[in-house]
Amino acid sequence: MKTDSDCIFCKIVAGDIPVCKVLEDDAAVGFMDIGPVAEGHALLIPKEHYETIGDIPEDVAAAVLRRLPQLVAAVKTVTGCQGVNVLQNNGAIAGQLVPHVHFHVIPRTPGDEFHFNWPVSKYPEGVMEELGSKIREAIDK
Amino acid sequence: MKTDSDCIFCKIVAGDIPVCKVLEDDAAVGFMDIGPVAEGHALLIPKEHYETIGDIPEDVAAAVLRRLPQLVAAVKTVTGCQGVNVLQNNGAIAGQLVPHVHFHVIPRTPGDEFHFNWPVSKYPEGVMEELGSKIREAIDK
Repeated sequence: MKTDSDCIFCKIVAGDIPVCKVLEDDAAVGFMDIGPVAEGHALLIPKEHYETIGDIPEDVAAAVLRRLPQLVAAVKTVTGCQGVNVLQNNGAIAGQLVPHVHFHVIPRTPGDEFHFNWPVSKYPEGVMEELGSKIREAIDK
Repeated sequence: MKTDSDCIFCKIVAGDIPVCKVLEDDAAVGFMDIGPVAEGHALLIPKEHYETIGDIPEDVAAAVLRRLPQLVAAVKTVTGCQGVNVLQNNGAIAGQLVPHVHFHVIPRTPGDEFHFNWPVSKYPEGVMEELGSKIREAIDK
C-alpha cells in the first residue's frame, strides 16, 4: 500500500494519530474534521496515499467513493441539515492543505458560514468544442 | 434505468439535448458545462436519475466515480491549470440547480474567479464525539 511517513492522513490511517472515525474498510476511512466549517463536517479519504484525485487508479477511486453516498446520507440524517456540499480540492491554489486526497462532506443550514460564488461565464464560439475535443482525446488515450 | 422525463440531464443522457461530451460508458457521462465558472469546467453525471448523492446505490457511485480521476487529470492536462476543485452540491441551499447528481470539475488558475471561504470553527468539548458516534451508528445500520 502506498504510504507517506510524513503525511498526517497516513498517520491517521495507521492509527498513530487518533481521530473520531465514522467508517472504515479496506480502502477508505471516514472521520470527523476537527476544524469544521459546519457542525458535522466529515472527511472521506483513501487509505493509500495519493496526493490528488488525478493520481488515483480507477479501482481505488471506485472502492473509496462507493462509500460517499452512505457518509453523506448519515451526516444529513444526524445533523438534520437541508443540504450538503461535497468538495475535494487538488493543489494549493484550489485550497488543498493536506496533500492526501480527501473529500469534504459539508452540511448546509440556513444562515451558515460556508459560501462559494458561482461566476458563470460564456465561451466564445468554438472554444468549448475545442477544449472538449482535447479533453476527450486525453481520456481516450 | 431510473430516469425522469422532466430532467435536463436525463435528456442529455438520452441524447435529446446536445452537449459537448468528453466521456461516456454504461454508467456515466462527462461533458463540458455550458456556463463555465472557469475555462475547461466539466461535469460528471450518472446516467441514472438520482437527485442527490445520498440517494445513489453504492455500486452506481463506484461505477460513476471510478471515472473521476481520469476526467480531472484530462481537464488539468488540457487547460494547464494549477489545481482543480471537485464540487458536488446537494439541495438548493448547497447551490444545486439541476436535481440530478453532478460533479463539477473546476480548473483553478491564478487570478481566477471561483472562490470559497473556509470558516474553520472548533467544537465545544464532547460535541464532535457525540455527532461522530451518531454518524457511525447511522452508517453501520
